[in-house]
Amino acid sequence: MEKIKVAIIGYGNIGKFSVEAVKAAKDMELVGVVRRADSVKGAQPSELQGVKIVSNIDELDKVDVAILCGPSRSIPELAPTYLAKGICTVDSFDIHTDVYDLHENLDAVAKKYNAASIISAGWDPGSDSVIRTLLLAMAPKGITNTNFGPGMSMGHSVVARSKKGVKNALSMTIPKGTGIHSRMVYVELEEGFTKEQVYDELKADSYFAHDELHVIPVNSVDDCKDMGHGVLLERKGVSGETQNQRFEFKMSINNPALTGQILVSCARAVVKQRPGCYVMPEIAPMDYLAGDKETLIRTLV
Amino acid sequence: MEKIKVAIIGYGNIGKFSVEAVKAAKDMELVGVVRRADSVKGAQPSELQGVKIVSNIDELDKVDVAILCGPSRSIPELAPTYLAKGICTVDSFDIHTDVYDLHENLDAVAKKYNAASIISAGWDPGSDSVIRTLLLAMAPKGITNTNFGPGMSMGHSVVARSKKGVKNALSMTIPKGTGIHSRMVYVELEEGFTKEQVYDELKADSYFAHDELHVIPVNSVDDCKDMGHGVLLERKGVSGETQNQRFEFKMSINNPALTGQILVSCARAVVKQRPGCYVMPEIAPMDYLAGDKETLIRTLV
Repeated sequence: MEKIKVAIIGYGNIGKFSVEAVKAAKDMELVGVVRRADSVKGAQPSELQGVKIVSNIDELDKVDVAILCGPSRSIPELAPTYLAKGICTVDSFDIHTDVYDLHENLDAVAKKYNAASIISAGWDPGSDSVIRTLLLAMAPKGITNTNFGPGMSMGHSVVARSKKGVKNALSMTIPKGTGIHSRMVYVELEEGFTKEQVYDELKADSYFAHDELHVIPVNSVDDCKDMGHGVLLERKGVSGETQNQRFEFKMSINNPALTGQILVSCARAVVKQRPGCYVMPEIAPMDYLAGDKETLIRTLV
Repeated sequence: MEKIKVAIIGYGNIGKFSVEAVKAAKDMELVGVVRRADSVKGAQPSELQGVKIVSNIDELDKVDVAILCGPSRSIPELAPTYLAKGICTVDSFDIHTDVYDLHENLDAVAKKYNAASIISAGWDPGSDSVIRTLLLAMAPKGITNTNFGPGMSMGHSVVARSKKGVKNALSMTIPKGTGIHSRMVYVELEEGFTKEQVYDELKADSYFAHDELHVIPVNSVDDCKDMGHGVLLERKGVSGETQNQRFEFKMSINNPALTGQILVSCARAVVKQRPGCYVMPEIAPMDYLAGDKETLIRTLV
């Protein structure tokens, strides 16, 4: 059977773990990694020995799927350039409010060039979205709460680092139940600044304005870093006319490792789709898996 | 928008809860209930007032989907008769070992008559199968355990009632962890029989031979009956090369109410599929839901 030819675009945390997941997939071939021109020139990390590193995907052999591992804000411009080459894309675009617009834009481009794209293929948005969809089918009336953490929020950490008096910062998301969260921000202070000043700076930012906030000065932010994360997704609802149906989905995971794996499973699914753009709830879950249909049905159903 | 026209076939526990779920679905119309000829003649339960009750679906107006609520062993013969009329079917066929064969047989029939069928659309097989599939995509290496209960096993209760010395029986499935279960069998004894005799009878049956077994005499089995059930589905596995990713799906539910609701959500999905037969992991989860794509994506993703 022909292997799925995959290129990884970007080699940050997500790119690194996506490479590992592609290498672990027996039905896939890693064609190469696309990096910024200046990173291509430098020394490559040891785990990329034997992997073709280029600054433009045209320098690689035929690619079926490009896994876009750059920042979310780069996706709306980047994805169409690959789709226009007839290459399928997957990404973990995570700006929830902009998912639908991206979906519509990429859908038109993908159809025009006879390619397919799965967007927001991480764990939230992503696999959590699939669970929320399934729970709504099981109990159409009710409330779903998604509780995140404890785990590092990349977005909040970046914002915290940009504040006056902050040398380095790490923002942890702490679940308080029923979808409410607090933020624990570990900071290395610039000399002459106090944690109270940083607290006020953060509270004035919309990223931190609405949640309980704690600022904790530390000597080394790096020593606090842990890529573990978690979720507790709860639904209490009604099936038909029967009240109090209770559902819980919980996980404790390495964050970029799970994102990389989901991207790679979606790379397998995307080549099976008709042209267009999809979010994960629009994909038949069995499409994520390798193997023949009979074995999968006998094993999973 | 035109409503989906649904008929319920069979009016036992699952049929009753399916009727409730169809009535609660704003995008569906209950065309009628098909019952055995002798049940059609008798007095109808009050909740079926105003519902057309017939013994043959041909007596009803146009039907899009037949929800088959009879026993699993009736499905392989029954489903093709509806598909041959061009009516889509859904069922909660739960004999795990026979799912694949049913899938292949109905696939051929459905394609021939330009209809679609979703089989094994309950919670296990069914929604649990979807979760197992998704978890495999998130951590391809590892072990999934499905722990059932505490809850009544219909199959085991029927077998227990057939034994010598047993007037009435109820078999509860109790989870012992890591996919191991014990059976607590509540029995009304015939006069002159002991619980030890019943224990030996049950242990000689393949249904009970392999699990821890307890026989508990009670005055009234009916007084012990509760339709609540539960599941704890656990996976510990590897994403890419990252070990110890932990996942848990847990629910505590009314068993026939959840089955009825899933059947009804699958009735919504089945009319959106191309001709053929499907298990739930082959269905895009968003197809289970009513509402426009934009709202669903904005709400769920």
